[in-house]
Amino acid sequence: MGQIRNVPVDEALALIKRGAEELIVEEELARKLARGKPLRVKLGLDPTAPDLHLGHTVVINKLRHFQELGHQVQFLIGDFTGMIGDPTGKNQTRPPLSREQILENAQSYRAQAFKILDPDKTRILFNSEWSDKLGAEGMIRLAARYTVARILERDDFAKRYRAGQPIAVHELLYPLMQGYDSVAMKADVELGGTDQKFNLLVGRELQKDYGQEPQCILTTPLLEGLDGVNKMSKSLGNYVGIAEPAQEIFGKLMSISDELMWRYIELLSFEPIETVRGWKREVDAGANPRDVKARFAKEIVARFHTRPDADRAEEAFAQRFRHGQLPEDVPAVNLKAPPEGLVSTQVLRQSGLAESSSEANRLIAQGGVRVDGERISDRATMFPPGKTYVVQVGKLKVRRVTIS
Amino acid sequence: MGQIRNVPVDEALALIKRGAEELIVEEELARKLARGKPLRVKLGLDPTAPDLHLGHTVVINKLRHFQELGHQVQFLIGDFTGMIGDPTGKNQTRPPLSREQILENAQSYRAQAFKILDPDKTRILFNSEWSDKLGAEGMIRLAARYTVARILERDDFAKRYRAGQPIAVHELLYPLMQGYDSVAMKADVELGGTDQKFNLLVGRELQKDYGQEPQCILTTPLLEGLDGVNKMSKSLGNYVGIAEPAQEIFGKLMSISDELMWRYIELLSFEPIETVRGWKREVDAGANPRDVKARFAKEIVARFHTRPDADRAEEAFAQRFRHGQLPEDVPAVNLKAPPEGLVSTQVLRQSGLAESSSEANRLIAQGGVRVDGERISDRATMFPPGKTYVVQVGKLKVRRVTIS
Repeated sequence: MGQIRNVPVDEALALIKRGAEELIVEEELARKLARGKPLRVKLGLDPTAPDLHLGHTVVINKLRHFQELGHQVQFLIGDFTGMIGDPTGKNQTRPPLSREQILENAQSYRAQAFKILDPDKTRILFNSEWSDKLGAEGMIRLAARYTVARILERDDFAKRYRAGQPIAVHELLYPLMQGYDSVAMKADVELGGTDQKFNLLVGRELQKDYGQEPQCILTTPLLEGLDGVNKMSKSLGNYVGIAEPAQEIFGKLMSISDELMWRYIELLSFEPIETVRGWKREVDAGANPRDVKARFAKEIVARFHTRPDADRAEEAFAQRFRHGQLPEDVPAVNLKAPPEGLVSTQVLRQSGLAESSSEANRLIAQGGVRVDGERISDRATMFPPGKTYVVQVGKLKVRRVTIS
Repeated sequence: MGQIRNVPVDEALALIKRGAEELIVEEELARKLARGKPLRVKLGLDPTAPDLHLGHTVVINKLRHFQELGHQVQFLIGDFTGMIGDPTGKNQTRPPLSREQILENAQSYRAQAFKILDPDKTRILFNSEWSDKLGAEGMIRLAARYTVARILERDDFAKRYRAGQPIAVHELLYPLMQGYDSVAMKADVELGGTDQKFNLLVGRELQKDYGQEPQCILTTPLLEGLDGVNKMSKSLGNYVGIAEPAQEIFGKLMSISDELMWRYIELLSFEPIETVRGWKREVDAGANPRDVKARFAKEIVARFHTRPDADRAEEAFAQRFRHGQLPEDVPAVNLKAPPEGLVSTQVLRQSGLAESSSEANRLIAQGGVRVDGERISDRATMFPPGKTYVVQVGKLKVRRVTIS
């Protein structure tokens, strides 16, 4: 499994703990690190089609830290239950997947994760390898190792049980199977989001039960989306996909609040902690946070594209919004206005950027509307006549609006 | 599967319901009977070593009634879970059984049950045949068909859950597997003790889930032991084993109370209901219940031995206790007594039938002591001098005690 880097244990721990939520148990991990042998660092993955956004990369970045220290990453694809899908047949979003689909998804995940990880220190395992072999008997024996009460302690189960919402019996088996993966893999450390903590602990317990040294657990926080409120998610639209064009990633990251910026830097930047502290001192001393944001945005663009792509994205962004220069293909619109000008919803509708006033209001409320590069949040914003505005809805719809 | 007897449905139902606790659902069973085809009548069995007593035969007698009507009995041996034993390893009374042991136990069960049942209308099935095939995946799919809350409704689970006593997750799987047996067997009717009702209902539900006509359920009461209080059980010592010698069975049945006798007759006798009603009228008119008891005891002895054996057992019993004649090998003891005689505990100790007064008290309290064939229940019973008594503890220890 390669050679381990000669880093003092406390330094290694500091790197591992950076931006992490919780480490169980720190002393145990210190002992494991002190042995100077590569550790098996597990991350469980759904076998569904991956389309990673920055939220997903928080935990992958952590894996990279382990790799930098010389340890080995083991992705565990939950293909066994993935091929079953939703056995109750009620959940249409969880259709059973074929082995081919799962392999394809795993390849796609690999390709995306290797933007961050070292392929030589990464293995992909499929739990069907040992779950199939369990058989009905092995499943009973596994189920015998945990009590109903302990599984029902899991937050979401506890809430559903108290609320009288149905929990199917097989749902109790899934955390056990996930824990058994750690046994089969002899995992030394398992990573996961904070919402996975219970399941990670089951793995720890089962390993003890099977006479293994229990895995350490490192949970990572959920990254907020661009809105700074909800967790980053594709369905909420507040995400930055890692496969997006360089200019998109750059522009989206430049749109976040100054506060959220520091959070993103903590969880996503690979700059040394000392460098980040320097940035904070600069801003405290009066520097424009936008410059720090641009530095950070370029780091992220370079990670998923190239350094020259990042430079070009910054240049294009600056041209577009700071100097009022826009690409030539932006449609131009001329609107007539009374002397006091037009209100924002009128501008959006009349320029074809919104279908109705209510849609216009919604877009503004969601923070999706920018004028000359600055987001507007007040639907009463007035546009005086005699000027040309660059009005943008989301990333794709732009108009050069001249009001006269 | 042979031919069905041409019995009106209401007569068939009357026979089936005789002495039964509950029938779910009577209308459904009536419909099934009316089709005139042999039904598959299931009884699930533990794969442990069987040593049947009359308590076990209550439900077997019911199976015989179904056979008399032309239906087919299907014993289901739970060998699959039997071979797993207690997967928690905590229950020493449930060690895993080998396939050989299970086959041997099934053969022994067969031999005993065929004292009552017709071998031509009896099949023995082993659930490993389909449970093995389920695999880990099938187990998950099966577990998906029931909610945790519904399984925890089962009386014993509900009590343990409320009391904070541990229930291992695999225990929730067992009722589902037992129910799945009914699906695999396409059972038309399932029989069981009243304590099995929940599990029998799971089978019914699962059959509906799998698109089958649901099985009807017939529960039979638990037979009281010779003490008339606790359920008949080997560990309580209040049982009549069907493999016991003819004289033992006869003697034990003659020892039950007159009240319990009618209960035994209801659940164990094959005499027509009309005949039993005639006996009741005789006793009401002043006949000695002992004569009815002897008739019933002979029926049972003949069932498990032969009719001549029954006659001989009755004769020996009569000689021994009614006419004061005892086999020649009964030890004789002479005891000296004051004019008022000896109290029962003294008689028992001094004749070597009890080791201590407390043992003597206990034997009397348990109803295990008989004097001249009559049970004594009062430890203050006096034995005046100048007489010879036949004192009996249990079935094996007898003394001819002369007090002078």
